[in-house]
Amino acid sequence: MAQERPNFQSIRVETDMALEARDIVRGTARQEIPGVKVTERNLEAIRITHVEILEEEAERLMGKPRGHYTTLDVPRFKERDPDLKKRLISAIKEALVPMLPESLQATVLVVGLGNWNATPDALGPRTVDRILVTRHLGTVVPDAIRTRMRPVAAVAPGVLGTTGIETVDMIRGVVQEVRPDLILAVDALAARNLDRLVGSVQIADTGIHPGSGVGNRRQGLNQASLGVPVAAIGVCTVVQSISIAEEAVHLLANQLADEVKFYEILQQMAEPEQRGLIDEVLGSKLGDLMVTPKEIDLLIDDMADVLGEALNQALQPRLEPSEWA
Amino acid sequence: MAQERPNFQSIRVETDMALEARDIVRGTARQEIPGVKVTERNLEAIRITHVEILEEEAERLMGKPRGHYTTLDVPRFKERDPDLKKRLISAIKEALVPMLPESLQATVLVVGLGNWNATPDALGPRTVDRILVTRHLGTVVPDAIRTRMRPVAAVAPGVLGTTGIETVDMIRGVVQEVRPDLILAVDALAARNLDRLVGSVQIADTGIHPGSGVGNRRQGLNQASLGVPVAAIGVCTVVQSISIAEEAVHLLANQLADEVKFYEILQQMAEPEQRGLIDEVLGSKLGDLMVTPKEIDLLIDDMADVLGEALNQALQPRLEPSEWA
Amino acid sequence: MAQERPNFQSIRVETDMALEARDIVRGTARQEIPGVKVTERNLEAIRITHVEILEEEAERLMGKPRGHYTTLDVPRFKERDPDLKKRLISAIKEALVPMLPESLQATVLVVGLGNWNATPDALGPRTVDRILVTRHLGTVVPDAIRTRMRPVAAVAPGVLGTTGIETVDMIRGVVQEVRPDLILAVDALAARNLDRLVGSVQIADTGIHPGSGVGNRRQGLNQASLGVPVAAIGVCTVVQSISIAEEAVHLLANQLADEVKFYEILQQMAEPEQRGLIDEVLGSKLGDLMVTPKEIDLLIDDMADVLGEALNQALQPRLEPSEWA
Amino acid sequence: MAQERPNFQSIRVETDMALEARDIVRGTARQEIPGVKVTERNLEAIRITHVEILEEEAERLMGKPRGHYTTLDVPRFKERDPDLKKRLISAIKEALVPMLPESLQATVLVVGLGNWNATPDALGPRTVDRILVTRHLGTVVPDAIRTRMRPVAAVAPGVLGTTGIETVDMIRGVVQEVRPDLILAVDALAARNLDRLVGSVQIADTGIHPGSGVGNRRQGLNQASLGVPVAAIGVCTVVQSISIAEEAVHLLANQLADEVKFYEILQQMAEPEQRGLIDEVLGSKLGDLMVTPKEIDLLIDDMADVLGEALNQALQPRLEPSEWA
Repeated sequence: MAQERPNFQSIRVETDMALEARDIVRGTARQEIPGVKVTERNLEAIRITHVEILEEEAERLMGKPRGHYTTLDVPRFKERDPDLKKRLISAIKEALVPMLPESLQATVLVVGLGNWNATPDALGPRTVDRILVTRHLGTVVPDAIRTRMRPVAAVAPGVLGTTGIETVDMIRGVVQEVRPDLILAVDALAARNLDRLVGSVQIADTGIHPGSGVGNRRQGLNQASLGVPVAAIGVCTVVQSISIAEEAVHLLANQLADEVKFYEILQQMAEPEQRGLIDEVLGSKLGDLMVTPKEIDLLIDDMADVLGEALNQALQPRLEPSEWA
Repeated sequence: MAQERPNFQSIRVETDMALEARDIVRGTARQEIPGVKVTERNLEAIRITHVEILEEEAERLMGKPRGHYTTLDVPRFKERDPDLKKRLISAIKEALVPMLPESLQATVLVVGLGNWNATPDALGPRTVDRILVTRHLGTVVPDAIRTRMRPVAAVAPGVLGTTGIETVDMIRGVVQEVRPDLILAVDALAARNLDRLVGSVQIADTGIHPGSGVGNRRQGLNQASLGVPVAAIGVCTVVQSISIAEEAVHLLANQLADEVKFYEILQQMAEPEQRGLIDEVLGSKLGDLMVTPKEIDLLIDDMADVLGEALNQALQPRLEPSEWA
Repeated sequence: MAQERPNFQSIRVETDMALEARDIVRGTARQEIPGVKVTERNLEAIRITHVEILEEEAERLMGKPRGHYTTLDVPRFKERDPDLKKRLISAIKEALVPMLPESLQATVLVVGLGNWNATPDALGPRTVDRILVTRHLGTVVPDAIRTRMRPVAAVAPGVLGTTGIETVDMIRGVVQEVRPDLILAVDALAARNLDRLVGSVQIADTGIHPGSGVGNRRQGLNQASLGVPVAAIGVCTVVQSISIAEEAVHLLANQLADEVKFYEILQQMAEPEQRGLIDEVLGSKLGDLMVTPKEIDLLIDDMADVLGEALNQALQPRLEPSEWA
Repeated sequence: MAQERPNFQSIRVETDMALEARDIVRGTARQEIPGVKVTERNLEAIRITHVEILEEEAERLMGKPRGHYTTLDVPRFKERDPDLKKRLISAIKEALVPMLPESLQATVLVVGLGNWNATPDALGPRTVDRILVTRHLGTVVPDAIRTRMRPVAAVAPGVLGTTGIETVDMIRGVVQEVRPDLILAVDALAARNLDRLVGSVQIADTGIHPGSGVGNRRQGLNQASLGVPVAAIGVCTVVQSISIAEEAVHLLANQLADEVKFYEILQQMAEPEQRGLIDEVLGSKLGDLMVTPKEIDLLIDDMADVLGEALNQALQPRLEPSEWA
């Protein structure tokens, strides 16, 4: 019976957020997806959800590789409250630290994915701009500082369309020269839920997977492709315009189910069917558009400030802020 | 009977394009709105529609002041074809010239409306950057050039949110000092039709009216408020996200009317009713979002190049391009 | 005798700093210029010199109008020490407060002079970008905040070369509409002393005077030309390249006076004569060049951060920083 | 006798221009440096000098590796004349073509050296932005175009201070992945002659050598370090401030030799001695400053336009401009 065996389906989940993928797969089912473990807690104005994908079947259903995904939802980020920014910096730092090599001798390469010249895709490069880069200072700084300082390098490799080189190839080349112990990739993500626009941060130990990111990254960045573990920190900066269409139809269906009898049927359609229908009708028309907040340029800068600060704190636990400003 | 008296309604038309306002008001009616005159012609890849609003009733219905509106639709602009750019420059110049004072002694003040720091709203300021400014050269250049050179000044007054001053007040102050014979305002517009995104230019002799422009200009810029005639050139750079929702529902209704019986009713709803419904359900959620093409930064620069070139050619008919480059 | 009547001369002093003008006029004389009062104090790493020009003769000699000039020399600013930044913010705020209208009802118009597109001249516009603008919020914010909030407007009027309009005319137009009680002008200055490059702030109650500023402002901005008192805050961002030539010759002369006998004569030449000689030989060649630190882009941003913070604190003494961030 | 054996000296030549190095080494000698071949010709407003360093001794004296150096001096570039730009594009293209692989199947990697965030050092990255990148289009474009299209990739690797990675290592990594047949490096150069500021282009088949470039590149980029031939195109964007000091003293000495007797001795000092003296006195003070034209931001953009166009024409001889615009 449907009630006993929820309708978990493997669909082409068009979201970069593991949390959304889980919600889509689960649909209205009350049970958790088998092989997935979810825990939640609330910090003042920040909701932290930890999704762990443990089994192959869950990986297949959700279209995300096994691993840990921490989502920090901060719907009030757009209000630009300095206190909230500070709390978010702490929360990101806390989620990052367990992914970093303990030894301060271990080198970390920060990679800012995306395109400088397209605002919603510029989060990675702009964050890289704020990273305290130290790998080249080894012989320059006094011993008293060097022993407390982790070697950090940072690159913004650009995008295929402007370099002619696959991002994964570019990074693999840099990795061969730098030999980092960990790659920390920063990327702009696409989400489905409008509330997540520049208001949601995902931290994962699985790297960046194909199709992820705003600018159509085509190949995965992970230990398999780069030979080095890849941690990823992403922020949702766009919602595909088709999400709005879906949300429109969905909300209308809910709203009108009572008054206008025939909406019932729409409402009873499984969501994947609804999506398929909308995709077919609107897909080609909306494919190249994106939805962003009006003040996107400002918000991307704010978020790059937050990520830069959080990364510097996490990477350099033994330096004082005044030593890197 | 409905067929004899089409259902022309005065609705709150949320578009800056006179052509779209006319289409919305007219709905499915076969006749033209009384007091409106429309002519159309096609240049290779550019469709030129001239809307003239002649009577008060038409003004009221459409929510646009009486005057001339020329729309240049260039859906292929995104392909970045240099030949198409050149043809568009010519077409804009041709539409502008009749609005300019004939005498080269008459001063024109170009005003670039909008916000430098918000890409889709930055078209005005970026165009101003490309204008050949000559008003201050009077005593510097040789007579042989000066007699062929119109005095042109150019300002980008910023937006209320970043200056604390109403745009109309700022411009009025400048007008008092510069005493131009004509103001030529450049603005980013919001449209409803997705095909118009950075692919449609509107040239009007009525100035900028309240609510127009991407960045919520709150007061009209026109002869009444500024004491000087105001010509306006606008380009659609955003579509409100609610337009996508509407289009989604609309297209679904058309598509499914045959197969899924209950869509018929939706299809038969008058469009204003559909819009009202969608507004009510989605309005608060989508109000602050906007829809833009992915490559918006690049396209805005392209369009600023086109406008700059067209304005320079129209304003300085007797200078050689090599004299202003 | 020369010893009793020092050789105070009115020269064309090519510096925007009153302190430098005084040093040039005074030359090697031990006495102060008659009609000038100077006091000095040292804050940790900031030297504060207050120059008061009291009499007409002093005004003529120094080429600066009568009034108060406070110079904050911070030669270590380039080291980007966060603590030093904080102390500089406090010192600027302290010097500014006495020039501001006491009543929080009095409106202040901040004017950022200079050219966005030329880094060393962009300090004014970039500072304006960081100002908390409140003049338009009167009816929007709750009473509890409004009574503690001064109305502030801010404009960056551009430069003659890109607008075709004299800056003073542009501002006069805005003043007529905004009717501020005080104008606070922010400008980039040229100095002669290389140590002052992005390391010296001058605060004056005399406005901006002709020839001042990096970008050849041609007319004064002051109560006489604008009808409103004008306070000015300027930062030295360039040194004229001719200053380097002078410094070269001057230092060589001092260094070599003992060893190479003929340098004595050069050393004994009065400085104005030396300058005249160098001007004549090098003037046309070096006139359009400027000298800046290598990291000028970064330093201008740092200084705009400092000025923005200092101005916001001075203008809004009763708002919490968290209320304007 | 001195007349027969000119005083060729190996000095630390602080210029990136082979032509200037030759002039410094040669001093006032009438003969050419042994092992160096120089030819000159004049195109309207462009002076083209070809310096060929043939022998080891010449290499040592001049501090530049053996190879071909073409200098295009365009002192009128600052006038922004469109015709002159077109002629310069042609001249650059003509000098570049012999360095490129003949086969259109051979891949070229364009490398834009320098720092985005420091205007005079940003020429490389800004030029890269204008390159038609095609390497990734292989399977996408129709055969009819592909057979006429060379695979081109382009990167801006950043600078050591912002990445923590030596530029040569970064590029070596990319080379290992891309396997180009030629690297074409674009860089900003330092010159000694003020007239060369954004008015001189050097094209060399020897790569980039240590100490070259505005931003202190520390290691050479050449076939030895990268395993691939490296052609280089550089533009002088800064003059070290010490050059001004030298020029000041030098010009004064010449000017005053007659009137002021003791300048004779200075005039008779060999130039290297003069330089040593000035370096000693002024070096530490002027080391971190640079001299640029006032309108540097604009000029760098102009030059990036010229280089982008010239490179695209040289790299894609069989594509029409309309196919890459």
